[in-house]
Amino acid sequence: MNVIDATTRELLEKTEFLALVTQGAGGPHLVGNWGDYLRRLGVEGDRIVLPAGHYDETEKNLQRDNRIQVMVASRAVKGSRGPGQGGVLSGTGAVQNEGEAFQRVKAAFPWARGALVIEVLSVKMHL
Amino acid sequence: MNVIDATTRELLEKTEFLALVTQGAGGPHLVGNWGDYLRRLGVEGDRIVLPAGHYDETEKNLQRDNRIQVMVASRAVKGSRGPGQGGVLSGTGAVQNEGEAFQRVKAAFPWARGALVIEVLSVKMHL
Repeated sequence: MNVIDATTRELLEKTEFLALVTQGAGGPHLVGNWGDYLRRLGVEGDRIVLPAGHYDETEKNLQRDNRIQVMVASRAVKGSRGPGQGGVLSGTGAVQNEGEAFQRVKAAFPWARGALVIEVLSVKMHL
Repeated sequence: MNVIDATTRELLEKTEFLALVTQGAGGPHLVGNWGDYLRRLGVEGDRIVLPAGHYDETEKNLQRDNRIQVMVASRAVKGSRGPGQGGVLSGTGAVQNEGEAFQRVKAAFPWARGALVIEVLSVKMHL
């Protein structure tokens, strides 16, 4: 059974953007990505692939501590108390500069310098 | 001059949700809030006020380290390279259970247990 269940998948299909957090030496480091970039690449199993434009600090942080958290949310997804759901996907990540994921990113986003590949290990819905 | 400039204000008017990050003992802690909740309360100067439903861990984190980061993004705001802008507001925060901000939150959101009050000290646009 996948960690990315039906509700999470619906959120990934609807979220306008993703907020990605890694642990930096001086505190948490926060970067974003677009939901439609994620959707252009598709979600396979529990793996999320995103184009990395800069992400220098994110990459450095992941080399030291590979844990990453991703927030997604949408008013168009039903929550337990009404319209709107949001949650956090937690897993491990790395910026890859070669391999299948990188080739796929490069084909879709020629400006990308790498592929941020995240293996989602757990999901927590907030609403 | 306000830290929250015209572009930031436009983002706060358009973002569907906000991702809020504090430093926890075991890593960054990530919670969300809705853009329309923020807009119902309004932004005054460089202060952001949000209803706090649970936010127990966020509150505990802020008591130890009051720094908080907020990501907002929208495809409907123009970025420097095309449609879509996003960025991070950094500042200090606290969950307040009394006072003017709390009364204002409570009037608009009877379910709230507190007001998350953020003084924005800097803003960084990403696109």
